[in-house]
Amino acid sequence: MRTDVKHFLLSIEDGIATVRLDRPERKNPLTFDSYAELRDWFRDLHYADDVKAVVFASNGGNFSSGGDVHDIIGPLTRMNMKELLAFTRMTGDLVKAIVNCGKPVIAAVDGICVGAGAIIAMASDLRMGTANAKTAFLFTRVGLAGCDMGACAILPRIIGQGRAADLLYTGRVMTAEEGERWGFFNRIVEADTLEAEAVAWARKIAEGPNFGHMMTKTMLAQEWSMSIEQAIEAEAQAQAICMQTGDFERAYHAFVNKEKPVFEGD
Amino acid sequence: MRTDVKHFLLSIEDGIATVRLDRPERKNPLTFDSYAELRDWFRDLHYADDVKAVVFASNGGNFSSGGDVHDIIGPLTRMNMKELLAFTRMTGDLVKAIVNCGKPVIAAVDGICVGAGAIIAMASDLRMGTANAKTAFLFTRVGLAGCDMGACAILPRIIGQGRAADLLYTGRVMTAEEGERWGFFNRIVEADTLEAEAVAWARKIAEGPNFGHMMTKTMLAQEWSMSIEQAIEAEAQAQAICMQTGDFERAYHAFVNKEKPVFEGD
Amino acid sequence: MRTDVKHFLLSIEDGIATVRLDRPERKNPLTFDSYAELRDWFRDLHYADDVKAVVFASNGGNFSSGGDVHDIIGPLTRMNMKELLAFTRMTGDLVKAIVNCGKPVIAAVDGICVGAGAIIAMASDLRMGTANAKTAFLFTRVGLAGCDMGACAILPRIIGQGRAADLLYTGRVMTAEEGERWGFFNRIVEADTLEAEAVAWARKIAEGPNFGHMMTKTMLAQEWSMSIEQAIEAEAQAQAICMQTGDFERAYHAFVNKEKPVFEGD
Repeated sequence: MRTDVKHFLLSIEDGIATVRLDRPERKNPLTFDSYAELRDWFRDLHYADDVKAVVFASNGGNFSSGGDVHDIIGPLTRMNMKELLAFTRMTGDLVKAIVNCGKPVIAAVDGICVGAGAIIAMASDLRMGTANAKTAFLFTRVGLAGCDMGACAILPRIIGQGRAADLLYTGRVMTAEEGERWGFFNRIVEADTLEAEAVAWARKIAEGPNFGHMMTKTMLAQEWSMSIEQAIEAEAQAQAICMQTGDFERAYHAFVNKEKPVFEGD
Repeated sequence: MRTDVKHFLLSIEDGIATVRLDRPERKNPLTFDSYAELRDWFRDLHYADDVKAVVFASNGGNFSSGGDVHDIIGPLTRMNMKELLAFTRMTGDLVKAIVNCGKPVIAAVDGICVGAGAIIAMASDLRMGTANAKTAFLFTRVGLAGCDMGACAILPRIIGQGRAADLLYTGRVMTAEEGERWGFFNRIVEADTLEAEAVAWARKIAEGPNFGHMMTKTMLAQEWSMSIEQAIEAEAQAQAICMQTGDFERAYHAFVNKEKPVFEGD
Repeated sequence: MRTDVKHFLLSIEDGIATVRLDRPERKNPLTFDSYAELRDWFRDLHYADDVKAVVFASNGGNFSSGGDVHDIIGPLTRMNMKELLAFTRMTGDLVKAIVNCGKPVIAAVDGICVGAGAIIAMASDLRMGTANAKTAFLFTRVGLAGCDMGACAILPRIIGQGRAADLLYTGRVMTAEEGERWGFFNRIVEADTLEAEAVAWARKIAEGPNFGHMMTKTMLAQEWSMSIEQAIEAEAQAQAICMQTGDFERAYHAFVNKEKPVFEGD
């Protein structure tokens, strides 16, 4: 997987990619450039075998302040509809790219996590936060609607329709305690161990079976608009495919031999 | 927005409509007339610019006892199928009208909130309750199914499928504490400040951006049966529309000038 | 309803069928035979009037250890794709048969509840557990994906997308406390009263209205992939049907006479 990115920070170690936004002095805002580069990078990730899981990390005590007011919102107020739609589609494409990248993504959220930053956390598969995490879908605060980058579809499925409506209408901060209680954060950990714990979790998941994880991720997204009957048939097919992988056989033989399975991802 | 209603109570002040059912001595039952008039009023609300948010309030310590046994259930037992379907469609049309009215609706629930009363609370966007709120989807108690006015689709999205199944099969009371813990109630407040707090919340939301709120409400409903990909595209379009409103520009200029934005709803 | 089953344990008393897997010394694994027989039995149940509700019980302190490693996983590693798909469809057909059986199913979960065992609990309408219940969707542990028998569609609707992702990627145990807090378990009870309480709950529900319960169950499944508008119309039709049952009239007359209604199921 390429690491020559310019508009966000990236390191890859032992199959774990750690991504973080830059400019901690401004709480890591997104820009046109970082949106586009993240979208492209997550799209490429779909084809990369050397990355097994991603940690989307905080930087300098904050996750992200979202779309920069000066760099993004100012220019948007001067765009025509064609340009606006190109922008909202690009931001939506980032969510699609995260959802379709085939690798579990863990958001490690400390401090400010607002606007498009909150969306990135929401679009991740798993979320770890700190007591200091302040998550706000604050689109209404900038005069817009709560329906940004899939929030009206995705957030209710994570925390329920009533709680999502509260956050999306008011743009208020969801505290870390609320986030854990409502199922947004899978775990709350100490700020100074947040990244290490997120990476440890990613490593654990990256032990595999990674072909299986890719299929889990695919189906968790794919089945949203299916009927129960369709979903069950879709899983019958997906799991039958997984049953022809070597990892299934490896797990069986390890079990028979009372060993821990070592997965190879095929 | 017209205020000449006969079968429920209505006041409009500063853009906040406060609706409540009448006949507190019978815990505010619904009747054929109040169903129809509420449906028509919420339908008209879609086109009204002078109402920004609605509080569906309690009356005399109770929200609603639902369809009146004598006025509604008795006659229903004597109807033919054509008449029955006309009735169930009318009640369903009230839910559709609330969902499609374009304004955030806050249910302020004290005391008894059962049957069609519970449905009205469920169909609202946000719910505030008191410790005394007793919410029951008691359709099975009158010999019917839990699938009334959209309950089998909407309730699971608010509180989860397992908890919804419990309430819908048994018709039992969901306590206020359960309601808050499960995400049905956004907040529990004191009974004597319930309505004031609900109105204050409505006022806060009604500060706008109201075009944005209309779009949030539309998309929260619209995206239920979409795939993630479809939802993201739908939001790209919806938010691009919002980016051409004056409120988006007003928010930007207010931010640049370090002022609080004043939204105008267009 | 026939009780001549060979590969699981079954008793029917007062309209309550109690089903449990056998071989408690191995924590009640599923086998090819018990999968097929359970599927057929739940399919037949759709047409049975003498069973009003089902308790899927534990046996010897455990619910089920899922697909047996030796009897199922071993043979699967040697099958071709046609055979594998026949197997995954058979297991999916068990979930479909539970969902479509027309009777409320209560899982009474003690001890180990993993793999296909966890799926059976998930596919039930209601779940009662003990503090000792250990529920794990451990498909990744055997080298497969989390998308088994509908898990990626059904589990998120019960406990939310983020928590489901955690369980489905990691295969980790969901504790009883988590299960209750997240809405997987409706109630946690003492191990020595678990079955009695589940049967009492089933009896209560089986008092009826059983035609209504059948319709509730049908619509809870049917409406997942509908729009809100479609769901409301579907419920208008379903409830109008229920309004022509005798149980609706019986409830009305009981109410008027200040008596407890006695439902007859038609």
